[in-house]
Amino acid sequence: MQQHLFDKQVYQQRRYELKKKVGNGLIILPGNKEAGINFRDNWYPFRQDSSFLYYFGIAEANLAGVIDIDADEEYIIGNELTIDDIVWTGPLATVREMAASVGIDKTKPMADLATLLKGRKPHYLPPYRSDQTLQLSALLGTDNDTVNAGFSVELIKAIVAQRSIKSVEEIMELHKACDITSAMHLEVMRSVRPGMKEYELVGIAKKVVADHHTHLSFPPILTKQGEVLHNHYHGNELHDGDLLLFDGGAESHSFYAGDMTRTYPVGKSFTSEQRDLYQVMYNAHRTAIEALAPGKRYRDIHLLASKTLVEGLTGLGIMKGDPDEAVAAGAHTMFFQCGLGHMMGLDVHDMENLGEQYVGYTDELQQSKEFGLKSLRLGRKLEPGFVITVEPGIYIIPSLIDQNQSQGKYLDFINYDKLAHFRNFGGMRVEDDFAITDSGYQLLGTPLANSVEAIEDIRKSAY
Amino acid sequence: MQQHLFDKQVYQQRRYELKKKVGNGLIILPGNKEAGINFRDNWYPFRQDSSFLYYFGIAEANLAGVIDIDADEEYIIGNELTIDDIVWTGPLATVREMAASVGIDKTKPMADLATLLKGRKPHYLPPYRSDQTLQLSALLGTDNDTVNAGFSVELIKAIVAQRSIKSVEEIMELHKACDITSAMHLEVMRSVRPGMKEYELVGIAKKVVADHHTHLSFPPILTKQGEVLHNHYHGNELHDGDLLLFDGGAESHSFYAGDMTRTYPVGKSFTSEQRDLYQVMYNAHRTAIEALAPGKRYRDIHLLASKTLVEGLTGLGIMKGDPDEAVAAGAHTMFFQCGLGHMMGLDVHDMENLGEQYVGYTDELQQSKEFGLKSLRLGRKLEPGFVITVEPGIYIIPSLIDQNQSQGKYLDFINYDKLAHFRNFGGMRVEDDFAITDSGYQLLGTPLANSVEAIEDIRKSAY
Repeated sequence: MQQHLFDKQVYQQRRYELKKKVGNGLIILPGNKEAGINFRDNWYPFRQDSSFLYYFGIAEANLAGVIDIDADEEYIIGNELTIDDIVWTGPLATVREMAASVGIDKTKPMADLATLLKGRKPHYLPPYRSDQTLQLSALLGTDNDTVNAGFSVELIKAIVAQRSIKSVEEIMELHKACDITSAMHLEVMRSVRPGMKEYELVGIAKKVVADHHTHLSFPPILTKQGEVLHNHYHGNELHDGDLLLFDGGAESHSFYAGDMTRTYPVGKSFTSEQRDLYQVMYNAHRTAIEALAPGKRYRDIHLLASKTLVEGLTGLGIMKGDPDEAVAAGAHTMFFQCGLGHMMGLDVHDMENLGEQYVGYTDELQQSKEFGLKSLRLGRKLEPGFVITVEPGIYIIPSLIDQNQSQGKYLDFINYDKLAHFRNFGGMRVEDDFAITDSGYQLLGTPLANSVEAIEDIRKSAY
Repeated sequence: MQQHLFDKQVYQQRRYELKKKVGNGLIILPGNKEAGINFRDNWYPFRQDSSFLYYFGIAEANLAGVIDIDADEEYIIGNELTIDDIVWTGPLATVREMAASVGIDKTKPMADLATLLKGRKPHYLPPYRSDQTLQLSALLGTDNDTVNAGFSVELIKAIVAQRSIKSVEEIMELHKACDITSAMHLEVMRSVRPGMKEYELVGIAKKVVADHHTHLSFPPILTKQGEVLHNHYHGNELHDGDLLLFDGGAESHSFYAGDMTRTYPVGKSFTSEQRDLYQVMYNAHRTAIEALAPGKRYRDIHLLASKTLVEGLTGLGIMKGDPDEAVAAGAHTMFFQCGLGHMMGLDVHDMENLGEQYVGYTDELQQSKEFGLKSLRLGRKLEPGFVITVEPGIYIIPSLIDQNQSQGKYLDFINYDKLAHFRNFGGMRVEDDFAITDSGYQLLGTPLANSVEAIEDIRKSAY
């Protein structure tokens, strides 16, 4: 059994606060089940649901947590192993023992869960795995669409309020995740050689996290085609002159995520074109980081970084006109199509399954529907205890240029002739992770080279 | 886009034969969807459904294949990318292009699938991912239980008949998967040192498969507690005197699986106790391999291997009495609780999602319900073109000994006093992969040390 992280008092306190916030009714938080790859018993690596981890701390499959606020009772639901099971799994802690370790003394087998819910209208989170829909549909005796639509907004809001503010102990766990993440990035940055394939570097990254007895917190992006935002192809050969973008993170032993990105030359140094654009992006990164503070809207920091990008691109002659007007018109989305960052915690996009609107926005500040801003996952005011990423980028996407140019878009702000020279430039991103403090911000993880000079120092000493 | 393996004529021929076998009606084979880990868009590595791969060859997510036998029409169902998608994924082949590449000229968007199925009672396979149940439930307008029970036995039998017999080209792909698998095992076998942690060796295995631009075909078992049959814990430190069991396989680029197991000393040589038991298992392995031939029931080969184990254990004084009677009484299941092997192909347990009874047994030969034999996945007569594993083992499971002894079981066949000396011995397994030929069998993959002497040669030269 994977040890849970905190003393049982921590989980008891978290549940106590959740009960207070939700007020009444019954809460069910299904733990995750094993998930089959190409048949039921060929399992993907098990990952517990993060809200289950937060309130119940147990990283075993096929459990559910129930909090009956009205009766003031808490249950761990799960089946004890039979001798047949033990032949396959070895002896494990009993459900009763696991429950006790997080301060719960009531357990029931899975078959009794329906009885426990009978006549109740439970609070549950939006299902994000199909088996959650199937389970709730069977338990509640209703159809899949009704289950998927019937989640509890009160529960979402209560959980977002708790999980958004990381305790010092949680921040230390995120720091550990970022330490492993930083070590992994440094190893890859030192290992790149012209002639290597992208997948060999993925192997090096996986080896580093395996040596830390953990794994990646999300499918890695490791590509010389950095302009493809979610590129999971790793078959390209790397050449001197190419830029490599690596966006990868490790999970801590306690299931907290790290998430960093670096972009660097496959050879020993940037070309002058690469250096110019990198410096523009680096300035946006620095500007955004320096603006981090409690009370600041992250949407405003996103727009500030966008403006810094526009100013830099204007300096290079790729953009033109007034930077404020360019950002207001959305012209920066030709190069920066996504958001500046997101919450990070037990999930790399923390609580994304609860809904971006609830996690990153408020009733007063709604998530935008515009291209660009709609991809900003976090817009609301920063608070002490938030952990976030800052990840500006410059992505030159030929099909997007063609579409915008053919529609005559952004003619006042884009020098299409100049941009044509950069058409096959690719893409770059730099990403670090921060905790928001009472007075400002704290970088998480061992600092890793991200300026042109520091990166070139590493690349020049690499081989 | 991952290239499919064969010329379109191969897929056309496979579908032609499937249509002939099933005879009439409409077949739907849903391709797999992306599967979320801890939120919907944090994806596990994508793996296409194997039957979809077999008949349609396309390794992209969110497609479905439809074969309308009555109208003699074939469709690939899927949505074309929008410019918004392309920003995230880069340009990809269109659904129309992918369909054409496997000989299909009709495509439809996903929204039209319900219309295509309207009024039909389609043949489909048993759902093994919950999203398949949800999708079929929505398409057919029925509840989840009805969907899960409504699979087509005719379709299962037709697909099992085709996929069981591997073509020469498929056997060559399985050979490649086993080659990578063998290289991975050799690297781990050479790398083990006293003081290492199991997870460091998992990292080495992952690095080898990553260097081949592929990945593991199933979650690896790499443990010094080999008696735990499905042990996915990798946190132990390895010491001189321990045995390490590694059961792992690589996938070929064409999605065929390899699956091998080796057990060897963490130090340079076996202890005399380990050597004795290893030799017993090795003899069972050799005996089983030499018995492989078309027309032989695999159930009989399983029982032959079991008898060889019993003879060896009797020679060591752990068992007693007549070996045939011991096997008939099931006494060997104290040490060998599982099956001798299984089919292998596009799935490591090939077609397990279609049902073991249909894949490994026949209407005449039903799968046993007895402890031990019920875990034998393959019982029926071997045929040329089958690809199978042979994997005997000896597993000393304290809780099973305690249960059997307290119930007075197998008193005529087990020397419980002698066995008590081996109580904490652990477990061992040896596994290789074979194609059944017209005249016998063919080992797949580069041969890898599996005798006591050959293993010790590698371990002694390792450090």
